[in-house]
Amino acid sequence: MENNLTVYNTLSRRKEKFEPMNPPFVGMYVCGPTVYGDAHLGHARPAITFDLVYRYLKHIGYKVRYVRNITDVGHLEHDADSGEDKIGKKARLEQLEPMEVVQYFTDRYHQNMSALNVLSPSIEPKASGHIIEQIEMIRKILEAGFAYEVNGSVYFDVVKYNQNHNYGILSGRVLEDLMTATRELEGQEEKHNPADFALWKKAQPEHIMRWPSPWSDGFPGWHLECSAMGTRYLGEQFDIHGGGMDLLFPHHESEIAQSVAANSKAPVKYWLHNNMITLNGQKMGKSLGNAISLFDFFAGNHNLLQQPYSPITIRFFILQAHYRSTLDFSNEALQAADKGLKKLMAALATLDKLAVSEKSTSNITELRKKCYDAMNDDFNSPIAIAQLFEGVRIINSVKNKKETITDTDLEILKKTMIDFVFEILGLKQEEAGRSNELIDELMGTILILRQKARESKDFATSDLIRDHLAKLNIIVKDTKEGVEWSLEE
Amino acid sequence: MENNLTVYNTLSRRKEKFEPMNPPFVGMYVCGPTVYGDAHLGHARPAITFDLVYRYLKHIGYKVRYVRNITDVGHLEHDADSGEDKIGKKARLEQLEPMEVVQYFTDRYHQNMSALNVLSPSIEPKASGHIIEQIEMIRKILEAGFAYEVNGSVYFDVVKYNQNHNYGILSGRVLEDLMTATRELEGQEEKHNPADFALWKKAQPEHIMRWPSPWSDGFPGWHLECSAMGTRYLGEQFDIHGGGMDLLFPHHESEIAQSVAANSKAPVKYWLHNNMITLNGQKMGKSLGNAISLFDFFAGNHNLLQQPYSPITIRFFILQAHYRSTLDFSNEALQAADKGLKKLMAALATLDKLAVSEKSTSNITELRKKCYDAMNDDFNSPIAIAQLFEGVRIINSVKNKKETITDTDLEILKKTMIDFVFEILGLKQEEAGRSNELIDELMGTILILRQKARESKDFATSDLIRDHLAKLNIIVKDTKEGVEWSLEE
Repeated sequence: MENNLTVYNTLSRRKEKFEPMNPPFVGMYVCGPTVYGDAHLGHARPAITFDLVYRYLKHIGYKVRYVRNITDVGHLEHDADSGEDKIGKKARLEQLEPMEVVQYFTDRYHQNMSALNVLSPSIEPKASGHIIEQIEMIRKILEAGFAYEVNGSVYFDVVKYNQNHNYGILSGRVLEDLMTATRELEGQEEKHNPADFALWKKAQPEHIMRWPSPWSDGFPGWHLECSAMGTRYLGEQFDIHGGGMDLLFPHHESEIAQSVAANSKAPVKYWLHNNMITLNGQKMGKSLGNAISLFDFFAGNHNLLQQPYSPITIRFFILQAHYRSTLDFSNEALQAADKGLKKLMAALATLDKLAVSEKSTSNITELRKKCYDAMNDDFNSPIAIAQLFEGVRIINSVKNKKETITDTDLEILKKTMIDFVFEILGLKQEEAGRSNELIDELMGTILILRQKARESKDFATSDLIRDHLAKLNIIVKDTKEGVEWSLEE
Repeated sequence: MENNLTVYNTLSRRKEKFEPMNPPFVGMYVCGPTVYGDAHLGHARPAITFDLVYRYLKHIGYKVRYVRNITDVGHLEHDADSGEDKIGKKARLEQLEPMEVVQYFTDRYHQNMSALNVLSPSIEPKASGHIIEQIEMIRKILEAGFAYEVNGSVYFDVVKYNQNHNYGILSGRVLEDLMTATRELEGQEEKHNPADFALWKKAQPEHIMRWPSPWSDGFPGWHLECSAMGTRYLGEQFDIHGGGMDLLFPHHESEIAQSVAANSKAPVKYWLHNNMITLNGQKMGKSLGNAISLFDFFAGNHNLLQQPYSPITIRFFILQAHYRSTLDFSNEALQAADKGLKKLMAALATLDKLAVSEKSTSNITELRKKCYDAMNDDFNSPIAIAQLFEGVRIINSVKNKKETITDTDLEILKKTMIDFVFEILGLKQEEAGRSNELIDELMGTILILRQKARESKDFATSDLIRDHLAKLNIIVKDTKEGVEWSLEE
């Protein structure tokens, strides 16, 4: 297995050669959704980014164990340690058991992921299913002296930790600055320092999600689940931890502190962060009220959307930007992605029909190498896609007899296009689209024949067509703009 | 909400009026799969049976919380308390983390369920995610004196329980008979009596799935998870517990004993059990080696299958038998189901085009009532389906002007057909089928026009058709049997 892969490590702030600790095995953990609402475009980006990483690592021969969690407890409203549990609140408002809320939105998240052709992770653990592991980890942190208990809650002692370790190693934040930041949020008064964070919170009487623990009936802090589940399924040290840049601080910074405190080891070798999707330059997020759900994208169901966009168009749109760049949403960009995707698929469909020649006019081996070079350079999908469009150009030129290709080169081109488009980028020909296109085309032919029959006053034929279409519930209308047809439901 | 529903309660061995404890709420727990292999036809039956129950209860106005679990730990090979954990064994053989096995087969189970149009349950808890709840329940059973600890394992004391309670209340088994049954399985020697069963098993060193507990690092017994999760999400007493008849003993019998011992209350008001699917009269099961997976059914990929059968055909086949009857698999029966389903869907498609008259020749109100009567009689879907086919007969007769129907009756007929076919029985027009049918029909029209053009030596038209089809990769062949066409991939 040749491996020239380099990845940008947030920890070192530079690209590093990718050398997993125990090849050919790779352990990868990615922060998944907090399931109290529908996923929006912002959620699609980490899912697709790390799906690309997962697919590419497998493609170049690694055996990847990919863990992506579901947060179903402990994520409080203010992302700090105060306010109501996000899922508990939704459950209270809708008069449901919290796990009904979790199930509902987890199912819908899975529907979205499947539509986006995002592969299932190897393991998808839920925070509420790993309370024991979290309690054990808190016990270890307490024993190591990096946490303290107040009134049944346990907090991580950031100041003490920072004496011998670096709280800020990942985010570059400086503890002094964090200490002076004023915080007036409820529940903060138990902390020794404002930078401390909860490992275990005692549940208020009205709090529904609660478990017994050595300290109180309560629930784990939000940062803890990822440390506990990462350790449980990937070991105390693993290769890759991914997530959105918005999770870098305090979530990932705190994960490192927890693992170092509990296991005396840095948990992760490579930290990878995808950048954000913006809307007119503004961050998109449920709490900001400007997030369009994926279901709305697929249905074209939002006043900012000029049309529906298919899941694979959205996927292609996201892959057309490097994961560390910001990506701004616009109808124009999505429409361009849709057009590009159709062009790519159309070229792929003609690959099997190209004539071969004695000589190739393009360097196909070089093209293939450039595709891999792009992906090996920190998963640079836009550069790889540009190369694939060079492939599209060659395919169309050969088809139009403007270029030639040898038998061997055609095989290489085919393999490159198919490997990258389907296996690595995870694009696909959308089935419904395909059938619908065929139906459109066949109807086009029939309407031309209808027109011809009318012009030549061949009423037997035009009546035959009318009757056949009526039987199929197809309504044909002659309008000023031409003939329109529709399928009555 | 008028409610004339009666259900057959295994506990009383007779049909009882359905009266939930806290209407309009209904709590329902159904035993889900142990995820160490693909679901087969046998798994489809409880899923579809209780999906029908869930849909019907919702249809008549109940608010149902439906819990269906995933067993991902504690189910040992011999279904008794010995042998290897089924998932742990699969994981060992495939060199995977057990939760990778769980994730893989859970995802595939969900794919099957979605194809069968089985609704997601309200909550789908996993046994491994509820260890704390199980430990708490064992503690209560120990405190009540109905369990004992041996070498770090805890067993339920069936003999002691049976002194004041009835171990056998559900299954009708007699404890004396169970005691004399010889058991020579490994791990039985710790039990005071062969009828006792494990609540907690100390893990052997090689056992991967293990959690800390007051008794040992170990794992819960198989029967315990359903009692613990049922109590957690539905309370100490709830309305319906469902499952396959094969789970009646010892699984459900032991669930009752556990709950009574822990909570001093009978946990469930109505116990519902679906019968088995047989293959040439033999039980079908993974351990018997004669089970055909659902994926194989959908693909027609097994030497016992004459063709692929679509998921909705399988659903219809299962609904055509009452859930308490055995159902024998055969190609003939499935082909008949497929034909019946097509006939039903075809009639539904013409519902909107029927002409109305002054008088109805059939009693539509009576038909509607009979549909509800059937479902109210212990969910008798075959009788309801027979009534729907009476509806089909009426639709076709009205269409062919052999019968008449009034406007009002047509509305009742429409509502009845649509409510029962789609909402209650959960059937649907399969999408791919629909597009493909349309493509077939349009091609049929085009080929007739081609034939006409040829006969009248209108070469311009026949050439136009040939060129259009070639562009769409459609190949037309004139054979002795007639014209055939195919779509080149």
